[in-house]
Amino acid sequence: MKTLKIPEATIIRLSVYSRFLTQADQRGIITISSGEIAEGVGVSPAQVRKDLAYFGEFGTRGVGYNVKDLHHNIMKILGLNSYWPAIIVGAGHLGTALCMYGGFKERGFKIVGMFDNDPDKIGENINDIFIYDLAKLDYIIKKEKVKIGIMAVPAGVAQDVADKLVSADIKAILNFAPKVINVPGSIATRNVDLTVNLEILTFNLGLSKDN
Amino acid sequence: MKTLKIPEATIIRLSVYSRFLTQADQRGIITISSGEIAEGVGVSPAQVRKDLAYFGEFGTRGVGYNVKDLHHNIMKILGLNSYWPAIIVGAGHLGTALCMYGGFKERGFKIVGMFDNDPDKIGENINDIFIYDLAKLDYIIKKEKVKIGIMAVPAGVAQDVADKLVSADIKAILNFAPKVINVPGSIATRNVDLTVNLEILTFNLGLSKDN
Repeated sequence: MKTLKIPEATIIRLSVYSRFLTQADQRGIITISSGEIAEGVGVSPAQVRKDLAYFGEFGTRGVGYNVKDLHHNIMKILGLNSYWPAIIVGAGHLGTALCMYGGFKERGFKIVGMFDNDPDKIGENINDIFIYDLAKLDYIIKKEKVKIGIMAVPAGVAQDVADKLVSADIKAILNFAPKVINVPGSIATRNVDLTVNLEILTFNLGLSKDN
Repeated sequence: MKTLKIPEATIIRLSVYSRFLTQADQRGIITISSGEIAEGVGVSPAQVRKDLAYFGEFGTRGVGYNVKDLHHNIMKILGLNSYWPAIIVGAGHLGTALCMYGGFKERGFKIVGMFDNDPDKIGENINDIFIYDLAKLDYIIKKEKVKIGIMAVPAGVAQDVADKLVSADIKAILNFAPKVINVPGSIATRNVDLTVNLEILTFNLGLSKDN
């Protein structure tokens, strides 16, 4: 079933649905309709049904979805039913902000270490996370069975760090460096361009100017 | 023409195309085909043509696109042919990282001030950007004709800061706080959830496990 090409927008919405379902569950709600999910997250009911239909039949016609079951299924689809050890390369402001970001832990991502090449930072702790020498990258990734590397390094060293992560056998890279990195196709990669978000806003500002 | 509903994925790709065209222009390329753009950014030629077709006819059949003209047109579509004064609320690690992020300036976004309520931070400079008292938010937004507010504050104060930005007549908000904010529909808003990016990776890791 998973070999279908799933639009990325669907995955993003599944992530949003799962947060909404967590809240619904906490409020003691047992069953929920696609209409209620849709209203809660601001999409159409048809969109909710279409997104879920990629992965099978979860609800009962005329009754709706069991909140706990649907949440469990979505978390499984997102790969969040297991624990994901991750590391952050770069202990600058962005790396530190990411290390202190509460949202990761909530969703099953555990930062097991940070890495830097600055002797003043190596050996320090941020938010109880130890900063290792970049030279230890390979050793720690293998020892802690780390699957995900988060890069918060300057553009100039991004490709070099990506190459080191690849040779340490990392499975996925989330790249915050303002430079697209080249890695083998077998490694799941996302380049997070913080500027793109601003550009979507200015596009929308342009729209509202015209209307 | 702009009243059509444009998919957000199209806007994101336009942003990518414009960067590619900048590079092509710097290499002295005069005309380019949809196939060459497609290959350069990793999408299909049909996708490039479809994305551009939302906004009119830019190329000449059999010849391709003039690189400078197409770049200029895309920048105009994205609202990047003008200068966007912006502010950052929150001078913590994330706010500081955003303030030092080189990508914003390159694309016409100028950070004209930061804001915090910590007396130790107020009056300091980060990257030559002054940190103002949060109480001055309304005054500076109006004085500098700021259109875009970037929020890098804790979840607990996010709605309060958003309300302050709204009453200061901001036009767009980019929210990095891990909490969805409620603002009037007339204000362009984006909630950047850093965790969603990790979840897209784990979804893709799940796929490769299955295959």
